Amino acid sequence: MSVLGIDASLRSTGYGVVARQGASFRCLDQGLVRNPPAHLHSECLAAIHARVTALLETHRPEAVALEGGFYFKNAKTALILGEVRGAVIAACALRGVPVYEYAPRRVKQGLTGAGAASKEQVGRMVASILGLTELPPEDAADALAIALCHFHGRTGIAALQPKPI
Amino acid sequence: MSVLGIDASLRSTGYGVVARQGASFRCLDQGLVRNPPAHLHSECLAAIHARVTALLETHRPEAVALEGGFYFKNAKTALILGEVRGAVIAACALRGVPVYEYAPRRVKQGLTGAGAASKEQVGRMVASILGLTELPPEDAADALAIALCHFHGRTGIAALQPKPI
Repeated sequence: MSVLGIDASLRSTGYGVVARQGASFRCLDQGLVRNPPAHLHSECLAAIHARVTALLETHRPEAVALEGGFYFKNAKTALILGEVRGAVIAACALRGVPVYEYAPRRVKQGLTGAGAASKEQVGRMVASILGLTELPPEDAADALAIALCHFHGRTGIAALQPKPI
Repeated sequence: MSVLGIDASLRSTGYGVVARQGASFRCLDQGLVRNPPAHLHSECLAAIHARVTALLETHRPEAVALEGGFYFKNAKTALILGEVRGAVIAACALRGVPVYEYAPRRVKQGLTGAGAASKEQVGRMVASILGLTELPPEDAADALAIALCHFHGRTGIAALQPKPI
């Protein structure tokens, strides 16, 4: 099975597709949806939606994993992140792919054993687990970490399984 | 020309399509996308995205108008409304239809002359302008009011035109 992890943001959404093969994990794809500052807000959302749709069609992942459980300093930031999430989640649900979310602390903890790990530690750990020869861009590394967290979350005990949003 | 107005919310998104014919306005369509409480969040966003896409294909409006300029009491509410807006805006931008937004106060002021008009006053004014024999559901009336606001916003003076988001 494979999982598409997404680190959603308006100007630089990271994505990563991870497949499990026995006890090891492999990166099938990773990258960024970059939206230049000159692009309209609506164009950015369309580009993100279109890329997610293309990734779902190419890789047919069984699940999509997002970051969740945010604390926002202001509502304007929450509104904009919400818009990006809406574009992503709608693309997934329209294709019947379930979406899960994991708190940033849990993502880091599962990978590095520390909820307060730095971006760099996350990147190095992701590269090591997936056998990547070079560090992916920060937002793509975060997306790969979220995808890996989804695998760790599946304990085999039904009552403890995360529920789709 | 016609305009699709949308009053976005997760469980009851209102929509209304308004056409101008000379100096008068006509309602081509209006209604609600109702999402039952039992539906997953992701299913609601997919249903809203799909309905907006269908409305764009049926009516081919020249513009979509949303409410904007919100004040949020908490970030959680902002995140959820953002998600609905993201699903809507991505649907419009993917089809090349420009999206505009208008503050609630401006929508009410344009219709009733008072920025603090009640929901009921808005509904009655919308019905009167559009020659509707009965009041539309509240969220659909709000959507029609937003579409009408877009027409009022077009003054013919280029520098004063609202800009798409």
